[in-house]
Formats: sequence, C-alpha cells, structure tokens
Amino acid sequence: MLTINERRLKELLNRFADFGRTPNNGVTRLALSDEDKQARDYFVQLAEQAGFGVTIDAIGNIFVRRAGENPQAEPILVGSHGDSQPLGGRFDGIYGVLAGLEALLSFNDQQVKTQRPIDLVMWTNEEGARFAPAMMGAAVFAQKLPLSQALAARDSQGLSVGDELRRIGYAGNADLSRYQAHCAVEIHIEQGPILEMHQKDIGIVSGALGQNWYQIRFDGVASHAGTTPMDMRKDASLGMARAMLALNQLGRREIPHQGRVTVGCVQLTPNSPNVIPGSAYFTLEVRHPDKQALARIDQEIRCCLQTIAAEEKLKLSIKSVLALDPLHFNPDCLNLMEQVCRQLGYSYEHIVSGAGHDSCQLNDRFPTAMLFIPCIDGLSHNEAEDIRPEWSAAGAEVLANTLFELANRP
Amino acid sequence: MLTINERRLKELLNRFADFGRTPNNGVTRLALSDEDKQARDYFVQLAEQAGFGVTIDAIGNIFVRRAGENPQAEPILVGSHGDSQPLGGRFDGIYGVLAGLEALLSFNDQQVKTQRPIDLVMWTNEEGARFAPAMMGAAVFAQKLPLSQALAARDSQGLSVGDELRRIGYAGNADLSRYQAHCAVEIHIEQGPILEMHQKDIGIVSGALGQNWYQIRFDGVASHAGTTPMDMRKDASLGMARAMLALNQLGRREIPHQGRVTVGCVQLTPNSPNVIPGSAYFTLEVRHPDKQALARIDQEIRCCLQTIAAEEKLKLSIKSVLALDPLHFNPDCLNLMEQVCRQLGYSYEHIVSGAGHDSCQLNDRFPTAMLFIPCIDGLSHNEAEDIRPEWSAAGAEVLANTLFELANRP
Repeated sequence: MLTINERRLKELLNRFADFGRTPNNGVTRLALSDEDKQARDYFVQLAEQAGFGVTIDAIGNIFVRRAGENPQAEPILVGSHGDSQPLGGRFDGIYGVLAGLEALLSFNDQQVKTQRPIDLVMWTNEEGARFAPAMMGAAVFAQKLPLSQALAARDSQGLSVGDELRRIGYAGNADLSRYQAHCAVEIHIEQGPILEMHQKDIGIVSGALGQNWYQIRFDGVASHAGTTPMDMRKDASLGMARAMLALNQLGRREIPHQGRVTVGCVQLTPNSPNVIPGSAYFTLEVRHPDKQALARIDQEIRCCLQTIAAEEKLKLSIKSVLALDPLHFNPDCLNLMEQVCRQLGYSYEHIVSGAGHDSCQLNDRFPTAMLFIPCIDGLSHNEAEDIRPEWSAAGAEVLANTLFELANRP
Repeated sequence: MLTINERRLKELLNRFADFGRTPNNGVTRLALSDEDKQARDYFVQLAEQAGFGVTIDAIGNIFVRRAGENPQAEPILVGSHGDSQPLGGRFDGIYGVLAGLEALLSFNDQQVKTQRPIDLVMWTNEEGARFAPAMMGAAVFAQKLPLSQALAARDSQGLSVGDELRRIGYAGNADLSRYQAHCAVEIHIEQGPILEMHQKDIGIVSGALGQNWYQIRFDGVASHAGTTPMDMRKDASLGMARAMLALNQLGRREIPHQGRVTVGCVQLTPNSPNVIPGSAYFTLEVRHPDKQALARIDQEIRCCLQTIAAEEKLKLSIKSVLALDPLHFNPDCLNLMEQVCRQLGYSYEHIVSGAGHDSCQLNDRFPTAMLFIPCIDGLSHNEAEDIRPEWSAAGAEVLANTLFELANRP
C-alpha cells in the first residue's frame, strides 16, 4: 500500500489556515475574497512546483493535473472547495483539496505511475456564504447552473462573481463542457458527531439525505393578554408549540433510518409580552435517505398539522420551499474505498451525508463517491472546528490508495 | 332614579373622536400631542360653559368641579384618561371622562343638588404609548411617581413631558398634595370579551389581577441540522415548546379563578432554517386575582421549567421582571354600584380587570371602585374598537346614580 507524508499534510493544512485566519484560530475565507485569492495563488504555486498542469475554467475552478501513462484515458477527478464560511473552520473543504494534493505529491515522492491522469480540483464557492447559490463552481462545471447566472450573482455589497473573478485573476478560459471523468471522489470532514462517537477512522459516504423544506404558518387572533380569558383565546403559538413537539417525535422515530426533522426558525406576531400571539410562522426541514419515506413523512406532517390547526381553531398554511431527492453514490467506488480501508487496517462505517457537497453536483455526471473523516464534537461552520492529526493522515492515506487503484483501472 | 341624555352622550363621544380620528375611524391621540390639546381645550370649554370650576395640576391632570351643598365635604372623584394608543379606539379612556361629564350635565339639567362636590378628572398619559410609564398622571397625583421623574420622561423624539405640557398649555400650578377624596370611581370599556359573551350590561370591577412577568431562556447547543442526528442534539427550542404547552395547561387550570398565563414573545438563536436552535428565549406573564395563588404558581412554574430543562439536557435561566400584587376595590362602593344596577334593571356581573387603569393608582389612597361596559368582540387598542349606544347609555346612567348616592353620603 502507498503511504503519505503526515508531517507535510499537517504543514499544508496549517499554511492554508493562514489565508483568512481569525483571532480565534478559525478561518474567514469567503469565495473570491483577497484571502481566497491568496489560497488559490499558493495552491497553483505548489502545483506548478510539483510539475502538475494547471487549468482554470470560467467560474474559477482550478484543475491541477498529474499526468497518467495513458494521456487519452478518462481522468480521475478528486477535490473539494477552498472557500470557507464567515468565522468558519480550518478544515471544511480545504482538507479535501490538501489531502488530494498530499496524495499526488506522495505519488511523486514514490515515483508512482498511474495509467489515468488524476485531476485535483479546488472548486469555487461551495459555501454560498458570499454569493448564492452554494456549490456554485461544481454546479456550473456539471452544467446544472448556467455560467451566466453564476457570474451575475452579487454579494451584499453589490459586487458580482464575474467582476470578482476578474479582480482576483481567476476568470479562466478553459472550456470543460465536454470533460468526462472516469470517476470523481472527494474527502471531507464529517461536520457531524457520528464517526467520533462510534470511534471510526473513516466514513464511507453512501449518499446524501433528500430534503424537504417548508414554511408553515398558524393564524389565530391577537388580543390583550390581560383581558382575554384563557378559554376565549385563539393563540397561534400553541399550534406552533404542539407542532414543534410532534415534528420532533416524528424525527426521533426515524432515528434508525437516519431521518432528521428540524424547526430552526420561528416568528410570532406581534411578538409582544402582553399580547396573545395572533400568528406563528416557522420553518421545517425534513432530511431522509429514502425518497419514499420523504413522501410518506410529507403526508404525515400535513395530516398532523391539520389536526393541530383544527383542535386549536387556527388557520394553517403550508408552503413547500425546497425538495431535493436523496442521492446515492457509486457502489463500485464505495466498495473500493471499503476494501482500501480494510487493507490499511482502518475502522470505518457507512454514513449518509446530511449536508450538501460539491460531489452532490457531480453525481449524475460521473460515477462519484465520498469519504469522511471525523471532526471533534461534530463542530463545523464554527471557528472551533478541529480534527486530530491521525484522522487527517488516515483520510489522506485512504484517499491516496483509492486514487491509485482507480487511476490504474482499465 | 336619575336619567342621562343618551343623545348628548353619543354626540360627545363622536365629537371627541374627531380629535385624532384616523382614516379607519379609530383614534391616534397620544398624550400631550396637538390632538390631546384639542380634546383638553374642548373639555375645559364644555366644563366652563356648564359653570364648573377647572383646576390643572403640574402633570396636566384636569379637574372639573361641580360644587356640592357642603363645600367643606370631601369630594367624590370620578374620571378616566383622555389620551389613546397609536391607532387606538374611540372609547378607551375618553368614554369614562365623557360618561362622567354627561352625568354632571344631567345633574345640571335636572337641577340635582349633592352634598359633596364632584370632581371629574381627565388624567394625563394613561396609555404610556408616547411617554413611559403608563398611568403617569394618576400615579403622580397619588404620589406614587415623583413629579420630577414624570416631567423628565422623554418620547422617542427626545421631547420631554415637561416641555410638551408647557407647549400645549397644560403645565398647571394647582398643589393637590393634600387632596382627599371621599371615594373615587371610574367607568371604562372592558377591553375584553366577557361581558358581551355573557350578555351583561355592566361589569362591577372587583379588582385587578396581580401580575408576575418573567424572561426565560433555555440554552442547548446550536449545530448543523443536516449532519446532527436526532439523538445527538440539544435543541433549546424543544424546551421552549414543552414549556409553552405546560404553561398554557397551567393557565387553563386557573380558568375558574380568572388566572391567565401568556407566552407572547419568543426568540430562537441563531433562528436559521438549517441550524438546530442553540438557545430559546421567551417571555411569560402570569395574571391572577389571588396573591397566594400567584406565589404558588411561581413555584410550580420554576419546578416545571427545571424538570423540562433536566429532561431536555438544557441550561435554564429565569428572570423576574415585574411583580404586581392583585388589587381589590372598595367593597362598599362595589355594593352600591351593584344596588344601583339592580334598581335600574341592568344585568351585571362581577369581573376582575386584567389590564391596568388609573384607578389602580388611586386604590390605596381613597376608597376606589370601577365599572365596565362591554365592547364589541373584546377589541381594544385597535381602530376597530366599538361599543353599542345602549351599552354606553347604561354605563353613564349607572355612573350618574352611583355618583348621586356617593355625593349625598354623610
């Protein structure tokens, strides 16, 4: 089996955390910011020093190619994103880029040859924190988002993606519209607590949860809290509170199936201490790996909310605002990753991603699969996000050996 | 029994609704505004035309005296407030002033003589909508709020009560610090739905609910709604939802005792659709006519919230922000009012005020009591606030006869 250079990987991670490092040792490296440009420049510099080819497309995705013995063979695509959340962590995204870089540098060190080229990509604007939508670079590359629309997106200051790409020098001209990968892999921190809790080195990411997002509103009658007796009220907040508990119960029932149900945002009107709430608005998101379960839960939710509305004498409105089908990564790639873990002696488990990743955009273009490494306390999108060096090294080693196997497949 | 002039009362109510009338036929007559000055000027004009004496104190309360046969006897104090909420109703407060005026004018018409003088007062700034605190004029008069503090209160534009009193010409110089009333009465619209629902003409207001106000906060851990399994969450919103339902149950249990429990204002943090709420803040107000019940409910609430916090693994904080004892009006005055209702053939019921009124400030200075008339759908602090002419007339008639009886008491 191939090894990687654990010390160099650690140095790379630390060096890239300088690009936007915050006083609390987190990172603010918003897409197409000066800090993003610094990280991109250094990434390109390291790639060129190692003798790799560099290609930049019109949305600023950076492709670094380590050549294969057979230049005509479809390449293996590997990578993740270089941008961060505001006050984000040092590993979200960039770990996947640098674990890939470390794999390729180790191949150089060990004079490893592969049949297929390997393309290491740093995707543009996965976070969507500065410019919407998220996963922008991968979505444009996969032709799921029109380039013109992505270039026209503006941040809160009115600056556009197109202008900012030109300003930082990453408005590339490579036309990759006919790009065909043999397969695509990505490694990422879990951003959740499961692997650490289960003491597993590696997560084999079988897919991503489907999502249904809703906006829900109960309407009752606002009135004076002092003068309106309890039995003459139509308090919209009671419908909301009952719904929050019932929806949570529904979510807990789906624990064995990895379902998740969250009410994250609520707003009462008029939201004043001595007025009975006349209306209650809240968001609901349901995530589940099974498409049919999502449809069934959708029906259950509507029925449950209607019952509550009737019992509390409230008007109900339910608006669907997002519906994403569950996604399943390529079984062959996943089998190979599992086999590599076993050969290297790393513990692993199959896990479903609750979050979106660049790979979710690629999945119906190429055979695609993902690996996770644990992160401490499941913390992410947080300056305190952290990983252990041995997790980082294990992930890069599994990735390197997976890439080697894939790149030598006929 | 004495009668009143129903047509004149209706005209008075309509005339005063001109002072700040809104396009939706409500009233915006904020304390010490131009509209308030217009209402005050017209009130003084009507009083002087009727031959009544006018006295204005330093906080702008206007006292209109109809002389008694015995000028040395302690007067009967009657009145309410002239200001309104922004986009408020045409009857809240001013009805009590004008029902009192109509009573005194009817005494004139019928050449009624009373032993005691009757002082009809229009209190300054009961609503507290422009200047805090509410019930300002009555509180200063009752020596519960220092005059200097009241005069220094400023509105959102930085204008002070003192400056605005001078501007509209109602910074009076009467020293009423040794004023002693034989008793004080007030009539007001109910601002709640009970009398209309029970088809009663008159509410005999036995007192006002005590109030405990709280600010409550549950703290859990904010985390990613997609990546955090249901059984690894510390969702602060679940503590809040459970508390909202339990507190409502507690309130409903107190229905026979006229207790009221309201969660009117909630705030989750970060309040984002795909983040599990890390903290949940909400306000709680408990109103009850019985002081011991309030203390017992306080203990129950703390126990209930602690249980929820422990079960949901959340941190709890409870802050008391207001505590007002229940208040009981004078039984003799209430008995007299009841007797007058019976003699006039009006239906009535005993009712506890859930809201604060000027009379609440007077109650421990003089024997004090209040009457309510119904209002349509319990609506108040609302442009749609309305009353029926027959309710208005019945209230003024009960008030007039009550004043007559009180003013002839030895």
